[in-house]
Amino acid sequence: MGKKIVAGIDLGGTNIVAGIFDESGEMIASKQCETQADLGPIRVVENMVSSVKELVKELGCSANDLLGVGIGTPGALDRKSGVVFFAPNLHWKDFPLMKEVHDRLGCPACIENDANAAIYGEAWKGSAAGCDNVVGFTLGTGVGGGIIVDGNILHGCCDAGAELGHLTIDPEGPLCGCGNKGCIEAYSSATGIKNYLKEQYADHKDSLIYKLVDGDLEKVSPKVVYDAATRNDSFANHVFDRVGYYLGIATANAINLFNPEVVVFVGGMTSAGDLIMNPLLAETRKRSFEVSFAKAKISYGKLGNQAGIIGIGGIAFQKFMKLSS
Amino acid sequence: MGKKIVAGIDLGGTNIVAGIFDESGEMIASKQCETQADLGPIRVVENMVSSVKELVKELGCSANDLLGVGIGTPGALDRKSGVVFFAPNLHWKDFPLMKEVHDRLGCPACIENDANAAIYGEAWKGSAAGCDNVVGFTLGTGVGGGIIVDGNILHGCCDAGAELGHLTIDPEGPLCGCGNKGCIEAYSSATGIKNYLKEQYADHKDSLIYKLVDGDLEKVSPKVVYDAATRNDSFANHVFDRVGYYLGIATANAINLFNPEVVVFVGGMTSAGDLIMNPLLAETRKRSFEVSFAKAKISYGKLGNQAGIIGIGGIAFQKFMKLSS
Repeated sequence: MGKKIVAGIDLGGTNIVAGIFDESGEMIASKQCETQADLGPIRVVENMVSSVKELVKELGCSANDLLGVGIGTPGALDRKSGVVFFAPNLHWKDFPLMKEVHDRLGCPACIENDANAAIYGEAWKGSAAGCDNVVGFTLGTGVGGGIIVDGNILHGCCDAGAELGHLTIDPEGPLCGCGNKGCIEAYSSATGIKNYLKEQYADHKDSLIYKLVDGDLEKVSPKVVYDAATRNDSFANHVFDRVGYYLGIATANAINLFNPEVVVFVGGMTSAGDLIMNPLLAETRKRSFEVSFAKAKISYGKLGNQAGIIGIGGIAFQKFMKLSS
Repeated sequence: MGKKIVAGIDLGGTNIVAGIFDESGEMIASKQCETQADLGPIRVVENMVSSVKELVKELGCSANDLLGVGIGTPGALDRKSGVVFFAPNLHWKDFPLMKEVHDRLGCPACIENDANAAIYGEAWKGSAAGCDNVVGFTLGTGVGGGIIVDGNILHGCCDAGAELGHLTIDPEGPLCGCGNKGCIEAYSSATGIKNYLKEQYADHKDSLIYKLVDGDLEKVSPKVVYDAATRNDSFANHVFDRVGYYLGIATANAINLFNPEVVVFVGGMTSAGDLIMNPLLAETRKRSFEVSFAKAKISYGKLGNQAGIIGIGGIAFQKFMKLSS
C-alpha cells in the first residue's frame, strides 16, 4: 500500500488498547485485548505487539509502513531510555518497555505516562482541541494530571513533573498516600473521600451515604455519595462541596501558574457534574487572577476512555509522522 | 564596523540599565541612568533610547549593527502587541512600550516581564546556567518569580502565568495584597513579615525586633529581623523559621510540578541566608517527591542586581541574534 501509519498503545492494568493513525491523524483502526499483567512483562509486550501487527495486517499495510509506535503506560518512567521504573499495578520494576517493543516491531518506539497521554488527547482532539496551554486533572482513586505548555507536555528534567495531585494546599491537612499532609489528593480523590467519610461516621451516622452501604465503610465511593446527594442528603452535598472547594483551590493555583486556555477534568468522578463543579468554580473564581480566570475555559474532557489511546496516538503522530514528512 | 549587536534594557521604577551584547552573548558595554517616571512615559522611553544610542556610538557601531532590543519591564503586559497594561510604580496604563522604542531606535523590539527576565538571566549565565528547567522565586516586597520549561520562559496564553507568589498554600491563611487568603506572598514577603510582626506585637513586645525600631511598627523589615536574629533573639529566629517553612512548602509544590534542575532564590531577603534556607530545605525535603528533590539544586542567584539586564540581554540575544544567523 505504501500508506504511512503510526500506532498508539494505551496500556492499562486490565486492558490494552491499540490504535492505528493515518497521515491525517485519524484513528483508522483499533482493538482491545487483556493486559495479562500476572503472566509477566514479556507477555504484556507480546500482547501489545500482536495487537499492532494484527491491525497493520487487517489494514493491508506492511510492517514497513509503520513509522513508529507510542506507548502510554502507568508508572514512573524515563522517556529517553524507555524504561518503566516502577508500575505497581503491572508489578513492573525497571522494565525496558521501549526496547522490548522496538525489538519486536522493528520500528521506532516511545513511551509516555498515561495521564500525560490522556490530557494530550484532550488537547489534540478533545475539549481543549487547538489549545497550546492546558492543565488537566484526572480524578479517580488518586488525583493526577497532565500539563501542556506552549503545545508540549511538561515533563521536567527527569519525567517526574506535573504531579498536580501532590501540591500542598493546607500544611496541616489530612495525611496523603504519598506521606505528605494536605495534598489535593488527600481531599479530592476517591481515596480522600473514603477516608473523610470514615472519619465523619460517628457524627453523621444518619446520612443516607452510610445507609446505602449498610454501614460498611469500605464500600463508600463517589458513586454512593452521588446517589445520596441526588436524593437530597445534606451531608452528601457537603461532601461534594468540600471536594469542589479544594479542587477549586488547586484549579486557581493552576490558573495563576500556567495561565491556560483550558482546565480540563477527566476521570470517573467527573460524573458528579455540577455537585462538584459549582463549588469548584466559585472557589476558583475567588482565588485566581481575574484576567487569567477570564481566559481559562473550565470543562470536562470529551473523549471519555478514548482519551488515552487518542493521546498516545497523537504523541506518536507528532513524533514519527512529522519527522518523516 | 559591521559588528552584530543586540541591546537589553532593564527598566526599573528608579533606574534604567542599558547593555549591549555581542555575537558571543557577552555584555560588552552598559550604562545606567535615572528612570524619571514622574516626567511621563515618553520621557522614560527617551531615556532608554538615548542610553542605547550612546552605547552604540561609544562602541563605534552604527544603528544598522543593532539587530534588536529587549526591554524588561515591571507590570502586566502583552508581549505580542508590546503594550504594558498596568505598571503602578511607573504610573503606566496601556502604554505601547514596544512600538515607542521601535519607532525611535528603528530596530525590532520585544518586551518581557522583569521577574521573568531576571530568572532567565540566572538560567543563561547565573546559578542555573545551562539548565532547561528552572523555577525562580524573587523575594522582596512581594513574592514573584519566573519559570523556565524546556529552555523557554513559561508565559501562559496571555502572559499572565508564573505567579508563584499567589499560590494558595493555606485556604484560611492571612489576607494577601491580591485579595486572596493564604498566598505564599502573605507569609514570605517583606510585606507579609511586617503584617505578621504587627499582629504579634502584643505577645512579643520584648523581642529585640521591636526595640530596634523603637516600637515603630512601620519600620520593621527583614533587615531588622535579621539584625535581631543574629543577636540571638528567639522571636526573630521564629519569624525566619516561619518564612522558611512556608517557602519550603512553595518550593516542594514547584518541585512536584516542574521537576526542575534548579530552584533559584533571588532578591533582597536572600541575604538572611541559612536563617531562612535551613527551615526552607527541611520543609521542601519533607513535602517533595524523593526523585525530584534529589535532582533539584536549591540555590541563590549569583548575578545579584545584574540578573535583570543580563536576562533581558539574553532574551534579545536568543530572539534577534539567532534569528539573524
